[in-house]
Amino acid sequence: MAVTLKEVAALAGVSRSAVSRCYTEGASVSPSTRAKIKKAADQLGYHPNALASSLTTGRTKLIGLVSNNFHNPIFLEVFDLFTRQLQDRGLRPLLVNLSDETDPEASVRMLKQYSVDAVIVASSTLPVSFAEGFQAAGVPVVHSFGRLTDHPKVHVVGIDNKQAGRMAAQELLRREYKRISMLAGPESATSTQDRLFGFLDALKSAPGVEVSTSFATAYSFDAGWEEMNRLIAEGDIAQGYFCGDDVLSIGVLSALQAAGFEVPKDVGLIGLNDMEMARWNNINLTTIRQPIPEVVRLSVEMVCDMLDQSAVPPKAHLLPCEVVERGTLGAVQPE
Amino acid sequence: MAVTLKEVAALAGVSRSAVSRCYTEGASVSPSTRAKIKKAADQLGYHPNALASSLTTGRTKLIGLVSNNFHNPIFLEVFDLFTRQLQDRGLRPLLVNLSDETDPEASVRMLKQYSVDAVIVASSTLPVSFAEGFQAAGVPVVHSFGRLTDHPKVHVVGIDNKQAGRMAAQELLRREYKRISMLAGPESATSTQDRLFGFLDALKSAPGVEVSTSFATAYSFDAGWEEMNRLIAEGDIAQGYFCGDDVLSIGVLSALQAAGFEVPKDVGLIGLNDMEMARWNNINLTTIRQPIPEVVRLSVEMVCDMLDQSAVPPKAHLLPCEVVERGTLGAVQPE
Repeated sequence: MAVTLKEVAALAGVSRSAVSRCYTEGASVSPSTRAKIKKAADQLGYHPNALASSLTTGRTKLIGLVSNNFHNPIFLEVFDLFTRQLQDRGLRPLLVNLSDETDPEASVRMLKQYSVDAVIVASSTLPVSFAEGFQAAGVPVVHSFGRLTDHPKVHVVGIDNKQAGRMAAQELLRREYKRISMLAGPESATSTQDRLFGFLDALKSAPGVEVSTSFATAYSFDAGWEEMNRLIAEGDIAQGYFCGDDVLSIGVLSALQAAGFEVPKDVGLIGLNDMEMARWNNINLTTIRQPIPEVVRLSVEMVCDMLDQSAVPPKAHLLPCEVVERGTLGAVQPE
Repeated sequence: MAVTLKEVAALAGVSRSAVSRCYTEGASVSPSTRAKIKKAADQLGYHPNALASSLTTGRTKLIGLVSNNFHNPIFLEVFDLFTRQLQDRGLRPLLVNLSDETDPEASVRMLKQYSVDAVIVASSTLPVSFAEGFQAAGVPVVHSFGRLTDHPKVHVVGIDNKQAGRMAAQELLRREYKRISMLAGPESATSTQDRLFGFLDALKSAPGVEVSTSFATAYSFDAGWEEMNRLIAEGDIAQGYFCGDDVLSIGVLSALQAAGFEVPKDVGLIGLNDMEMARWNNINLTTIRQPIPEVVRLSVEMVCDMLDQSAVPPKAHLLPCEVVERGTLGAVQPE
């Protein structure tokens, strides 16, 4: 049987309230009382029950960490950073896998059951209705890698995907590719829509450039591989591709190499994310770096702000991207 | 404010105990009462609080999912499978990142605080003292990918790493490589020790074969890359390598290619795991498949068995491996 607070109080010769205060952050208890309680607790093997105490404090310190694409290696970095940073602040991530979930209501119900203090939706492909559903249910939400809007309904931390699309287009233009294409992520994702918008916007006034677009079914290796093989079979390959993200890029690179194309000699590629394997020597992907550590850090800060204050108006937090030059684009042409 | 059970009971015109039974698994309540309660709950937006009810049932349905290597992409598959299978059974994974943790006591304390119903240690590199620490604290434990022993102190689900080492040696012998090496994982990991033992054991009676070994500092791309570059600098490359796992193999492959070696023409490689990217066309790694989905499925089953029964004696559960032939080993020599 678990040791109770009452037993610790009895052994330490202090009141139950003193024991309770001893395990409550910020509550006052004298050093000598604390020492007595600590000794009794050690002797009895007492562990304060975070969940039982949550009934009094109203805080479980559980944070729902919600995602939906476990085939994109970028999420291993994302989970690593989130778990470390939440743990450092005494918070605990309840990992929720919505890979097959289409009903925001069901997810809200589940997380409400667990009385999570807040939810971090870490996904650029989950419909915004999920984040808004948590919000509507009264759970503080941060949508990491979500869409930036002027009047966000929930806190969003991420990059300006339109701007990232423009950067990719400019890199391809600087190489003087004349047939330029975006092999984008799933059409329904806001990240896809925004990256494509910026990409096309930057190319609309480029003279003599032929622009095409196509969509992969997911941000995954297989989806990139399949879409590029479809394009190869149609016999209509562009000179330079902006791939929706890095894992798509690797699928595309792999399909091109398997069909006998050399990268960047025959076809140039630029990705987005700069995930760990983009710099692996046998991939060596030129890409646009999304500042993942900063997105995570700021998301966790936002969560903590919301827990400290009663109401923080939703805000979109924008972080800058940068081009990382590696080996999948040709040389920049002199001006 | 959260809707209470009392309000639901009042609106439904039933007793509080009826509402409580309605939300307790296996408790008896008539269909008509259940319908009345469901209607009232929907109307009020009532969500039963899993954590509050845990104080009566003694069950939180939280399962600690403990790991320590977020640089090995295999764990994305592992987390995907664990979260799905736990969710399917109404259990919730509390993700714990012990990447920098060296003190089993601190981890035990933390998970006790959250009253997890059980712990899954998903790691072949965390010392067994972690799993044993949870066990000693009275928390049911399954050590997935742990070491198989005749008298395990905790439930272990995994592969026979000695046998996997033997399989790798035999594959290299079948190609008649004469200089054979294992570039192993971190020396302190039981998986490394066992794979190496089996590897050396299978080679000890092979005539005319020169055997060498070395260790990477982690199961990661960078560790494989660094160790192979060290060997290249020493000028002493073997003909065929068994790399401790797939992500190490990719680091080794990358280092060899960067130094101008062709794989498998100049050097052969075999890995272990068969993680998703092993089959990526630009990696195409010959490897030994570890049955990850079966390890996860059986681990979750063991957890559920332990939750259903008061005491299940610890057992080691062995799952078979198989060789997956791809492009990083030379052709098998005719006998």
